[in-house]
Amino acid sequence: MELSTIYKPIQKELTEVENQFKLLAESKRTVFPDLYKMLSHILTSGKVIRPALTLLAGRLYNYDTKLLPMATATELLHIATLVHDDAIDKAEVRRWRQTVSRIWGEDKAILVGDYLLAKAAEYAAATENMRVVKLFAETLATICQGELRQSLDAFNLELTCTDYLERISRKTASLFSMATETGAILSQAPEESIEILRDYGYNLGIAFQIVDDIMDFIGTEEELGKPTGCDLAQGTLTLPSVLLLEHYPEDNSVKKIFQNEDNGESIRRAIELVRNSSIVQECCRVASDYRDRACHNLHLLPARSNHQALVELANYVVNPRR
Amino acid sequence: MELSTIYKPIQKELTEVENQFKLLAESKRTVFPDLYKMLSHILTSGKVIRPALTLLAGRLYNYDTKLLPMATATELLHIATLVHDDAIDKAEVRRWRQTVSRIWGEDKAILVGDYLLAKAAEYAAATENMRVVKLFAETLATICQGELRQSLDAFNLELTCTDYLERISRKTASLFSMATETGAILSQAPEESIEILRDYGYNLGIAFQIVDDIMDFIGTEEELGKPTGCDLAQGTLTLPSVLLLEHYPEDNSVKKIFQNEDNGESIRRAIELVRNSSIVQECCRVASDYRDRACHNLHLLPARSNHQALVELANYVVNPRR
Repeated sequence: MELSTIYKPIQKELTEVENQFKLLAESKRTVFPDLYKMLSHILTSGKVIRPALTLLAGRLYNYDTKLLPMATATELLHIATLVHDDAIDKAEVRRWRQTVSRIWGEDKAILVGDYLLAKAAEYAAATENMRVVKLFAETLATICQGELRQSLDAFNLELTCTDYLERISRKTASLFSMATETGAILSQAPEESIEILRDYGYNLGIAFQIVDDIMDFIGTEEELGKPTGCDLAQGTLTLPSVLLLEHYPEDNSVKKIFQNEDNGESIRRAIELVRNSSIVQECCRVASDYRDRACHNLHLLPARSNHQALVELANYVVNPRR
Repeated sequence: MELSTIYKPIQKELTEVENQFKLLAESKRTVFPDLYKMLSHILTSGKVIRPALTLLAGRLYNYDTKLLPMATATELLHIATLVHDDAIDKAEVRRWRQTVSRIWGEDKAILVGDYLLAKAAEYAAATENMRVVKLFAETLATICQGELRQSLDAFNLELTCTDYLERISRKTASLFSMATETGAILSQAPEESIEILRDYGYNLGIAFQIVDDIMDFIGTEEELGKPTGCDLAQGTLTLPSVLLLEHYPEDNSVKKIFQNEDNGESIRRAIELVRNSSIVQECCRVASDYRDRACHNLHLLPARSNHQALVELANYVVNPRR
């Protein structure tokens, strides 16, 4: 199913989130033109899955106007971490566009990323809900620890599947679960429903990241909006490369990449190996398992509206060619 | 007057803030030893002026236990911005110690700075006061804009005194005023008193930054805990160098530094020129004016306790050899 179809029940609100981004950039046009240019460049529409999760979770109960600032906060937090990640990775392209750090330098990327974190915190505070604000701050701390873990583990061949899952649970799943949990809290869902929706977000986040990591091997540069094999080039082991190391312990191009920091040829070979093995299927199976876990308890939601959109979104997320 | 004497009425609480820092690092000792090491390195005691401001403002009214998390949040926010600043400036030393970016790399400095921002936000949220949380987020956004302005203005010789004051009002005074304003809010001061204490913090922040910028010219490396002349080396015009350009418009070593001719020698010459001119006195006079503005309305505070410590702190701040 197309994302636009899944988003139909919340399309008006999603457009409003994107309007907030335009307003945010626009508010700087005359008072701080350089910041305006950077914000206009950064705040373009992605798949807006995270704000969609807040809105989809929220509409199951009492729709609250405070869902809108929270959905905006969720996406801003996500974008801020991307801006910092790109500065850290010295990435040149993201979503088919040059990164902030590439155009304006790493120093500006650090500062504009901080600014986006601040604006995200402002939007979270605009919900007037202290539980939500606390969850927002805790999630940011969790994400940073995941990113730090990844950075410290760079070029470490000893990483296991458990390490990988722990890292992506912090780095990615925490934000997905914050998105659904805050949606549930703000719409006054009962505690059991908040828990079910949080778990949905968490498991969906794991599935999402696994598929993202598969795509780094099987996607084309055109599909990805950035080069294939970025993770290996950064020294980041993901599920496909962990399995590659397990399946071919002797002669393995991943080892060559990590030991020599050799890029070109070994990266191409590792990509070929993954593509021509059962690894893609294995990873997809793991992602599907997490999709199933995500949806497992949704039927228990005593919601007045049905939760079909959440199931459809979960199915969308586990499709590598989404 | 010694800082320890001024801090006497709040010494117990300041020690508690420092204990929070120890707990924060300690909580990672076994679960994330690398992060523990970084936090232990970063979270050492400075002059803790910003948390002192929160506590000193707060004790004028109804002492509230929520002042403590806010004082902690204020200092953590300050430290987070320093960690990012050092990564941006590629600074090697701060407070007589190697910087995070120097020891662990710029990438780790970005992430650990983000982590500290998150923890600062958590402490701000622990006040359970939404007005305070909003002010915290707005202040971070303001600081980032000040830092961004400074970064964009690097090596720009056209900067005026007005530009300089605008920049430091965002970069420094905003946090000082947040410190006193949140202290006043949390202790349920009346609105007029909140305003007076906010203005005190704001003007004190301007005075503080001017004196800091003077010290970059007249301090020794031993006093500063980092090399003299850092600002010029970074291409940052401050009040002394703006005045230097005004007083010696023709032959000026600042121009040479900014045009990248013969750095070491020109920096030494610029420092000499400032030291042997009336510029230091002029800058001190401006700082003293802001100190006076800071203290001007303190007598209007209908406080049950007296505000003498605030006056003493203001006098301390404008002393370059503090």
